[in-house]
Amino acid sequence: MTQLSYQDLEALYGPLVSKYDGERNFVSFTAVGELPRDLKIKNKDTVWLAGGTPYESMFPVQEVDLKIRENPGSLDDTTPLSNKCSTTKVQMYEPQGSAKACLSTAFQYHDAKGLPELLNLTKQIISRMNKPQYENWDTVVTPGSSDSLSKICQTLLDSDSVILVEEFTYPNIVHWAKFAHSEVVRIKLNVTADRKLQGIDVEALRDLLANWVEYHPGKPKPKCMYTIATGHNPTGLTQSTESRQAIYEICCEHNIIIIEDDPYGYLNMTPYDQANPMKNPYIEESYGVEHYCKKILSPSYMSMDTEGRVLRCETFSKVAAPGLRLAFVAGNQFLISKLLKMHYFTTRGTSGASQAIVTNMLVDMGEQYQAQHPHEKAPLIDGWVNWCMKVAAEYTHRRNYMFMYMYEQNVFKKNLVSFIEPSCGMFVTLVINFKPEWNISETKRIMDYLYCCLTEEGCSAVLGYKMVVDRDYSMERANFLRFTFAKARDPNVFKIGAERINAAVERLFEEYNVNEQFTLGPKGII
Amino acid sequence: MTQLSYQDLEALYGPLVSKYDGERNFVSFTAVGELPRDLKIKNKDTVWLAGGTPYESMFPVQEVDLKIRENPGSLDDTTPLSNKCSTTKVQMYEPQGSAKACLSTAFQYHDAKGLPELLNLTKQIISRMNKPQYENWDTVVTPGSSDSLSKICQTLLDSDSVILVEEFTYPNIVHWAKFAHSEVVRIKLNVTADRKLQGIDVEALRDLLANWVEYHPGKPKPKCMYTIATGHNPTGLTQSTESRQAIYEICCEHNIIIIEDDPYGYLNMTPYDQANPMKNPYIEESYGVEHYCKKILSPSYMSMDTEGRVLRCETFSKVAAPGLRLAFVAGNQFLISKLLKMHYFTTRGTSGASQAIVTNMLVDMGEQYQAQHPHEKAPLIDGWVNWCMKVAAEYTHRRNYMFMYMYEQNVFKKNLVSFIEPSCGMFVTLVINFKPEWNISETKRIMDYLYCCLTEEGCSAVLGYKMVVDRDYSMERANFLRFTFAKARDPNVFKIGAERINAAVERLFEEYNVNEQFTLGPKGII
Repeated sequence: MTQLSYQDLEALYGPLVSKYDGERNFVSFTAVGELPRDLKIKNKDTVWLAGGTPYESMFPVQEVDLKIRENPGSLDDTTPLSNKCSTTKVQMYEPQGSAKACLSTAFQYHDAKGLPELLNLTKQIISRMNKPQYENWDTVVTPGSSDSLSKICQTLLDSDSVILVEEFTYPNIVHWAKFAHSEVVRIKLNVTADRKLQGIDVEALRDLLANWVEYHPGKPKPKCMYTIATGHNPTGLTQSTESRQAIYEICCEHNIIIIEDDPYGYLNMTPYDQANPMKNPYIEESYGVEHYCKKILSPSYMSMDTEGRVLRCETFSKVAAPGLRLAFVAGNQFLISKLLKMHYFTTRGTSGASQAIVTNMLVDMGEQYQAQHPHEKAPLIDGWVNWCMKVAAEYTHRRNYMFMYMYEQNVFKKNLVSFIEPSCGMFVTLVINFKPEWNISETKRIMDYLYCCLTEEGCSAVLGYKMVVDRDYSMERANFLRFTFAKARDPNVFKIGAERINAAVERLFEEYNVNEQFTLGPKGII
Repeated sequence: MTQLSYQDLEALYGPLVSKYDGERNFVSFTAVGELPRDLKIKNKDTVWLAGGTPYESMFPVQEVDLKIRENPGSLDDTTPLSNKCSTTKVQMYEPQGSAKACLSTAFQYHDAKGLPELLNLTKQIISRMNKPQYENWDTVVTPGSSDSLSKICQTLLDSDSVILVEEFTYPNIVHWAKFAHSEVVRIKLNVTADRKLQGIDVEALRDLLANWVEYHPGKPKPKCMYTIATGHNPTGLTQSTESRQAIYEICCEHNIIIIEDDPYGYLNMTPYDQANPMKNPYIEESYGVEHYCKKILSPSYMSMDTEGRVLRCETFSKVAAPGLRLAFVAGNQFLISKLLKMHYFTTRGTSGASQAIVTNMLVDMGEQYQAQHPHEKAPLIDGWVNWCMKVAAEYTHRRNYMFMYMYEQNVFKKNLVSFIEPSCGMFVTLVINFKPEWNISETKRIMDYLYCCLTEEGCSAVLGYKMVVDRDYSMERANFLRFTFAKARDPNVFKIGAERINAAVERLFEEYNVNEQFTLGPKGII
């Protein structure tokens, strides 16, 4: 375990924060300078007549009771509400030392960093599944990963900065980076089914940084790199552990902060078995929490971080609920303190309702898990890990249904399309295997034609080229669609979807450039 | 009612938005350009395989049940939990057309503008109590007024901009304005008990703007003015309707946007009666909702706005609970659309938990109120207005207790101090009537000496000079402390507080410059 003091971290990463950081000094008006040393406080039970905080008996809400599912809903059970629920309470008060949040603090003004009880749980989550290789790391609660990433961009970047981004990516990062007036440079991605090679092209990255001045004359060297390394959006790729280690070392060499956005990291799926489509080892082999943590989850950049170089963005959106707008960032103490400062200039913290709901749900899940597994000496957080594992099992199940129906289709049998099967997440890449006579310079028009066919057939998808940093650079490799198996009420949705995709792809191959059925301009969709 | 089209509003206020606005174009990757017109959609029941949204049966929370107090807690009842509660539910589903929010949408990704059900209620709140004099106004939900104000600053201001701010103010506005790289210019405030004169000095404002070039040579003319016109923080002042109208007209003349921050506007208090300290007409005369709306509330800038010039910041912090981080902004459609855009670059909306809790609580309060007042034909929102009125009644009660104990003290009888009694809000200004021999150039040191005495005696307060824009300009008028009667468990808190304040002030007058009891430097607290 590396020892890094706050001063060490400041020396290493101070040069990478925005030039505006120095202007962002927030001093509360209730703070006072140093009081005279010879002050003699007579009454230590200070009467608080300073801050404009309402007394909690004036809060209209006195208690929040939550019905919590024992298991995530299954695709096979079309009843959207479960009969098997337990109750979690958020009460007005909790006894001192309780792991739970209470309304008198959660509904009051509270520390922008997060409720102490939730901060405690976020540290347990990191320690259990993604523990860094150094001390002096910390966490800060945020109102969603969009907020985390926007604030990270504003903390690090300005008009003198460059951020590296995977060529295919969640495009909002480009918006946030530009909102901070910075420049985005794309990194080459290997969009391939080969799990050793998929993700960031290590040699291309090494070359880019070693020869930065030649590739990008006049541009400052990049300060940070944004990556979705596990269950990548949009491609579903997962960077291998070996290549991740190599990328980490390259970033150390060039003093680049790694922004690890990992919303899907807990949704690991076992390999799909065409011979046995419904195979789900989570269920059949009754995977336990320990197996899930040690054998199933992909090691993150954070878990290999010895230098405090990784800012890890986690969210409760995919494993609990997106509308909670609840997330957190883990990283070194220096950078987390800078992120916290951004809260003071903007949101001033995160909904106490969302925080208390999640906190108390996690504590109750933990206590139930410990009671059910008395011999494991399981840490409290294992209740939540167990929930995450069940959600991963359900995603595996959804993936199975979608893949089964898809592989039954003619277009797969005829090899007109192929899947890049994901090992994690909620997305799958459907590659269109272009006819030899199709010109790849027409990729946009070909994919637009397919999109129009899909729309006519009644199925939605995301065009790969919509999720690029630089169309000129990536368009010829953008011969794919992003599909998701996240949201469906029952398996039939995937069956109908597969049939419609099949019909649309067949039409593309029959009609494109031969007998087009609607008027598409030479550049595709306007 | 003035008719103003979006184009009219854009023409009037477009020139006042930040120079960065043009760069802030957020396009979702799921949006597509114009599809071919001759597209023939075969299946209109589109299978949704595009967006990464979990299906709601995987949300762990299935239902949220809230215990809602019938009445806000009273200072006389030291039991913090009420026996009289009703239950409000947030269920997974609501029937179509319901006024309530449900978890399947509130806990899902949802429109950054706010849940439709809550947006509907915010419009009812504005229409009932602060309806503008023009059409085409709108609202946007935010995660707290800090967020609203930070986003308003970033929407309007940049390094080429000036914002006007009252010389004494909630100092975070200075931080937010500086975060947007803009310059803050203070406006003179009359800190006086005279209710016709108190608040912004109208003639000083008129003079400042008419002779801007002389007063601030080289500076751009201000784009906007931030004001807390009702129950001002820190002074408790309320701008009279007449002076408000004059200020509004000055702002029209100079095309200045009025940012009306009104967290305390519903906490109106009846005048304090020294002969009958516990007098509370809210209770004794059983004020009704109609009386409260028409006779008690101070008319806001928004309610006199004919041109879409006012951005009104409301919050649920003071009348519900601050930890919800739930607020909204009302204003003209053009500016609200610009604010909404800021959500996409940062928080991407507000906690669905907070939104659903408040929405359903307000709907239930409304339905109960309507059932209890069958002959009033009351609008749904009157249940919430009734709650606000009850909270105002309780603040009147708290004010009564604090004032009763304070006016009993020697320092009041000897006229060493005086109150500027507020008509609204949670703050009161305690003016220190300096000895004739004290030099006002020593104001800071005198107030610091008092602050140290207060600390020794065991009472917290906020120093007036901590809440200024420009110490050089305002220090000589900063001979006051801000106290609040917002937070106390029982009346005894105010009694002890008053005694300690008395002791501290007596010591100031006995010890200052004569026999100082601790070592305070020549400039006061470091």
